[in-house]
Amino acid sequence: MSTYPGCSFELTILGSCGGPLNNHTQSFLMKRAGSSESGYICIDAGSGLAEIADMIYAQEYGNTFLVKSLYKSSAEDVSRFLAQGVRCTIGFGTPSEVFLKKSAEAHSSIMRTACEIFSEVREYYITHPHLDHMMGLILNAPLIYTKLGSYKNVYGTEHTIQAIKEHIFNDKIWPDFTTDNTIRLEALEPSIRRNTYSIQGIDCIPFTLNHGQTIDTKEPVLSTAFLFHEHQTDGHVLICGDTESDLVSKTDSLLNIWTYLAENVPINNLKAIVLECSNTDEVDTSKLYGHLCPQHIIWELKRLIEVYDVKPENFSLHVILTHVKDIDSEEDPKITVLKQVNKRCKQQGLDKYNISFSMAIQGFTMIL
Amino acid sequence: MSTYPGCSFELTILGSCGGPLNNHTQSFLMKRAGSSESGYICIDAGSGLAEIADMIYAQEYGNTFLVKSLYKSSAEDVSRFLAQGVRCTIGFGTPSEVFLKKSAEAHSSIMRTACEIFSEVREYYITHPHLDHMMGLILNAPLIYTKLGSYKNVYGTEHTIQAIKEHIFNDKIWPDFTTDNTIRLEALEPSIRRNTYSIQGIDCIPFTLNHGQTIDTKEPVLSTAFLFHEHQTDGHVLICGDTESDLVSKTDSLLNIWTYLAENVPINNLKAIVLECSNTDEVDTSKLYGHLCPQHIIWELKRLIEVYDVKPENFSLHVILTHVKDIDSEEDPKITVLKQVNKRCKQQGLDKYNISFSMAIQGFTMIL
Repeated sequence: MSTYPGCSFELTILGSCGGPLNNHTQSFLMKRAGSSESGYICIDAGSGLAEIADMIYAQEYGNTFLVKSLYKSSAEDVSRFLAQGVRCTIGFGTPSEVFLKKSAEAHSSIMRTACEIFSEVREYYITHPHLDHMMGLILNAPLIYTKLGSYKNVYGTEHTIQAIKEHIFNDKIWPDFTTDNTIRLEALEPSIRRNTYSIQGIDCIPFTLNHGQTIDTKEPVLSTAFLFHEHQTDGHVLICGDTESDLVSKTDSLLNIWTYLAENVPINNLKAIVLECSNTDEVDTSKLYGHLCPQHIIWELKRLIEVYDVKPENFSLHVILTHVKDIDSEEDPKITVLKQVNKRCKQQGLDKYNISFSMAIQGFTMIL
Repeated sequence: MSTYPGCSFELTILGSCGGPLNNHTQSFLMKRAGSSESGYICIDAGSGLAEIADMIYAQEYGNTFLVKSLYKSSAEDVSRFLAQGVRCTIGFGTPSEVFLKKSAEAHSSIMRTACEIFSEVREYYITHPHLDHMMGLILNAPLIYTKLGSYKNVYGTEHTIQAIKEHIFNDKIWPDFTTDNTIRLEALEPSIRRNTYSIQGIDCIPFTLNHGQTIDTKEPVLSTAFLFHEHQTDGHVLICGDTESDLVSKTDSLLNIWTYLAENVPINNLKAIVLECSNTDEVDTSKLYGHLCPQHIIWELKRLIEVYDVKPENFSLHVILTHVKDIDSEEDPKITVLKQVNKRCKQQGLDKYNISFSMAIQGFTMIL
């Protein structure tokens, strides 16, 4: 029995930075809510072992409800970033039985504990091959390589897997750990549902997204959204990689996803949508480079509400924002983004729907 | 007049990790000792803006002589990692006049201050194209791109520059910021001296190193050592990228450098050698993957002493070790490596020479 009745997922935020800071970049660990089974699904891998260690360190030595900040104050209470009523725990969620057993037996330097948690991450879903979504996995790979018989499954759509093969594990940028089967790359077909590898009873559908254009040849840059479905509770969570709004891409990429959701997932079973919001509204649309900003988030949510076509009182959605870019400013842009989406939500009359916004904050686990 | 008479360089350690932890990987900022001129030379760029911000944060809010540790204890005093008598300051060294002026004028969130220091880094010397030596620069690049007219010069030998062009700034792994002249890549000729770009009166010679073999085709992986020369004091510092010992590579790569030094640099003008020591002596030679360990460090230093051919009492050298790999252990491998090099130094009778070993520790500046 779940310790979180009605909940489907635990989403551990290893990293949610969208650069240009080169730490804690986007990565989420996912498991069933309240489950003590071993195994995590990792969505994007900008962060990894270092952030796992950071989280253990913070739990043991830090003032852990405070989030380190580089802006006005040196720390912010995590509640400033969360919608009211969101269930959120410090550090990792429910520990696995295997982990608890090992921890009790073993000496437990933070490094050792981090390695144990890392070994429970067995599969990665990468939204697109930009380095801020893969660095953790790449840098951590030698740790897998040096453990006999150890490996990680890495999934993504064809453009992601090809780019990783050709440009990362190529013995130039990084040792080719695919040769030794340490990193097992596998391409997924867009829009095709398949079971995940390491946790029984969760499946996943990848959807293609647009992430702007290349600088040189102005070709489209692709990205991916993953829709995860937990069978026991029939809960779903949608995790989107970097994307621009359909309003900018002049495509129906996001609309296709909204339509799929409306047709297949009752709104109460959609536990959350994780959406990037890299920029504040001050950034001109021509300078978004394939990303979202608050006004586009609200524009997309309006379309989602339209296709769901339910009465406001029957509509409820938790939107988790991620990938905010750090900027040369006094106010934390994560705070600015939250203010702006909430304000625009009201302005556009969406406040009669029950939409709540949280910011993904490194080091915490949300129960969805 | 220098505030550090007899000293030539300030070496700020932005990062010294050799993985598999995906943070604080190798990167050094360098400037003249005691100089308030604007401008830093950056050698390797595994770390960047995030570590600059970390250092400002630690100076403002941390117990800064303590180094966070993931092993036996939660923190170690920095003196445990330094040779006796080493001049070492917390955070960045001498601030530039430009920086002091700007700081006095501007609002000063940590993010703003970090951006200002980052803007003083104008040239990068990359030892080889592995990601743990470039991640910071890559992830920080959008910050340069968004500032009109802003750019960074990036130097390396041909194999480094080619790999960066082909596999990083290629609009697949990362936007091609070379097209817009934000990142200006330039190949250096090995063994040819040339003046650095941003600080007058410092020149640099790159030397080719061996960094093991590719996993797939067993071809040699190349790396670089940079010898910097400060004209006013005639001081030199050698900063080596990842390398294996000549004993393993069966080449004379390191011997060629030792010979060049012995023929051109009086030992007292060699302010320090920065050498990687990725592994402890417990790691079997067949598992070094192109890296050094304490026994090979001592073997190389013996060869260096031989070619210098001076009396023990006239020989003095500060060896700064870096790039230690984190492992699943109780004791910090940085401490283990220091114990092992000091023990082997004695065993091999090198203790009659004045050799001192320090560990490069992120967040500090050494005055050399």
